[in-house]
Amino acid sequence: MSHDIVVIEGDGIGREVVPAAVDVLEALPVDFEFVEAEAGDAVKERTGEALPAETYERAAEADATLFGAAGETAADVILPLREAVDSFVNIRPAKAYPGVDALQPETDVVFLRENTEGVYSGHENRLSDDLSTLTRVVTSSASRELAEFACEFVDDGRGPAGDPDEGFTVAHKANVMRETDGRFREEVLAVADERDVDADEELMDAFATKLPLDPTQYGVIVCPNLAGDVLSDLAAGLVGGLGLLPSANVGHDNALFEPVHGTAPDIAGEGIANPTAAILSAAMLLEYLGHVEEGQRVRDAVEGVLSDGPRTGDLGGDATTDEVTAAILDRL
Amino acid sequence: MSHDIVVIEGDGIGREVVPAAVDVLEALPVDFEFVEAEAGDAVKERTGEALPAETYERAAEADATLFGAAGETAADVILPLREAVDSFVNIRPAKAYPGVDALQPETDVVFLRENTEGVYSGHENRLSDDLSTLTRVVTSSASRELAEFACEFVDDGRGPAGDPDEGFTVAHKANVMRETDGRFREEVLAVADERDVDADEELMDAFATKLPLDPTQYGVIVCPNLAGDVLSDLAAGLVGGLGLLPSANVGHDNALFEPVHGTAPDIAGEGIANPTAAILSAAMLLEYLGHVEEGQRVRDAVEGVLSDGPRTGDLGGDATTDEVTAAILDRL
Ligand SMILES: CC(C)[C@H](C(=O)O)[C@@H](O)C(=O)O
Ligand SMILES: CC(C)[C@H](C(=O)O)[C@@H](O)C(=O)O
Repeated sequence: MSHDIVVIEGDGIGREVVPAAVDVLEALPVDFEFVEAEAGDAVKERTGEALPAETYERAAEADATLFGAAGETAADVILPLREAVDSFVNIRPAKAYPGVDALQPETDVVFLRENTEGVYSGHENRLSDDLSTLTRVVTSSASRELAEFACEFVDDGRGPAGDPDEGFTVAHKANVMRETDGRFREEVLAVADERDVDADEELMDAFATKLPLDPTQYGVIVCPNLAGDVLSDLAAGLVGGLGLLPSANVGHDNALFEPVHGTAPDIAGEGIANPTAAILSAAMLLEYLGHVEEGQRVRDAVEGVLSDGPRTGDLGGDATTDEVTAAILDRL
Repeated sequence: MSHDIVVIEGDGIGREVVPAAVDVLEALPVDFEFVEAEAGDAVKERTGEALPAETYERAAEADATLFGAAGETAADVILPLREAVDSFVNIRPAKAYPGVDALQPETDVVFLRENTEGVYSGHENRLSDDLSTLTRVVTSSASRELAEFACEFVDDGRGPAGDPDEGFTVAHKANVMRETDGRFREEVLAVADERDVDADEELMDAFATKLPLDPTQYGVIVCPNLAGDVLSDLAAGLVGGLGLLPSANVGHDNALFEPVHGTAPDIAGEGIANPTAAILSAAMLLEYLGHVEEGQRVRDAVEGVLSDGPRTGDLGGDATTDEVTAAILDRL
């Protein structure tokens, strides 16, 4: 069975790291049909639209999408694409690797970020010359769906500890957003209880203090949309930056994979971007499609190169994107 | 002229660190009239109200209030108290001190957090069994008032670099909250421009990655309410925890000073809490009341003790609250 994969390079270093990830996928004994599609600043400049309807539809119909990055238009591209693949959870692992400079080398956490609502549902109003409002939305159904996913994730040993007993932590701000985050917190904890999964909780501000002080306290963290955005980016800072972080937007029957980093305009076009985050996103894609063993092969190759292979400038080396990719391909 | 100061110890270690801060204030050649008032879990248990009307009114009428911490009722106490003193800005310095273990020993930043609106304005609704909403509020007037304060703060050399040229950074999420954070961002940058103050900007998620990687890039950071809550707590993690962080809630004609830490139920009642954050909050109170020199004396004494005096358990020592306070008093 061949998998239909939509490939969207986007802008900036997206054009360099996505091809590297595709090279890695093509080197494996898995059948893919890749279809290229456009999105981002460049296509907007040409056509007036950052996300052409054709790209949206292709992503919606594919088995999965691999996305790079978009520039100024990032929100106009990525938010609708997450919707196109009907994704309700954004999986964001942040792991420090041996041999890579990290502020907290023990960090190994996975954020499960609610991917449809919160402030992202985006009902904003300009009520007067002085006043604007945003209506933040939280439903029990989305909170429970995320929690069900989290329970399975933990039960399947997909958390960093690989141990179902590790449970998860729910991070929220229910002491202030009592009704909305209160609902989120209550539903997530209720599902964990029904499923017999260990769950504890942290206020998101306290979590932001404690994670840098001791990341080993945490494994899987379940959060509302914006909290997941900010707290997972904080974890990126602890493991040495965004160059290593992959992510998956998972839906019921479709998914989109993307490095957490952006277009890196300062180095775009020079062929020196770190392809690791995109290649690890490809590993997540493999696992999502059921090729768990191949996903693990990619991870092992990446970790090998990180520990004693060539490295790009962001990691203190001077290798090119191609050299790092070749080294990873060599180890596959 | 004597200053009327309301003193609210609150719960937990608030009862230990606030008296220490009052001892320090009393040791200085400044005339204070202290009035005790109650708030928190204990008074709620006794009277049914976490924040008695009398406490609210006293705080509203005082020259300033010194607050400790409240337990479960924290939000019921601190949010109305911020309103009682009419505070529009929450000043939160996070500084690493020589001799204190810090993840990022170069950290020296000050957050100026909007203190009246955002998600804290708190219009929440339960619209159905499944759906709750929160209306987040952003006004041009509050954004501009905060920005005016930030410009004066920077101009007066109160930023970490002490140099008006350092300007400030505005952190926001205007790429998603386009209308609300868009308004905030636009007004803050416009005021900076009118006042000829250098201002740059960061998305709050990118800021959460970059601050741990290199805090020396930042000085004064201006943010919406919840962003300021979370990002300043992140900075606390970089300087070694909450035990050292003071804060000021400043209004037009009144102010409230509080350590950023909570009630620390695990050590409350043992006399071993770190009084530093409360004492540094007292230093901010002195400066607010115009006693800049005395404020500096307190800071110098605290820094001296941090670098080679007795220290409490959170900093790896075994001194009591009283011993640390006595050492600070000795150096005044
Ligand atoms: C580009 C932006 C809309 C997006 C988000 O906030 O989700 C990004 O920060 C991310 O985390 O993928
Ligand atoms: C207790 C809580 C309401 C409060 C806040 O969110 O402002 C606290 O976290 C703080 O930062 O002072």
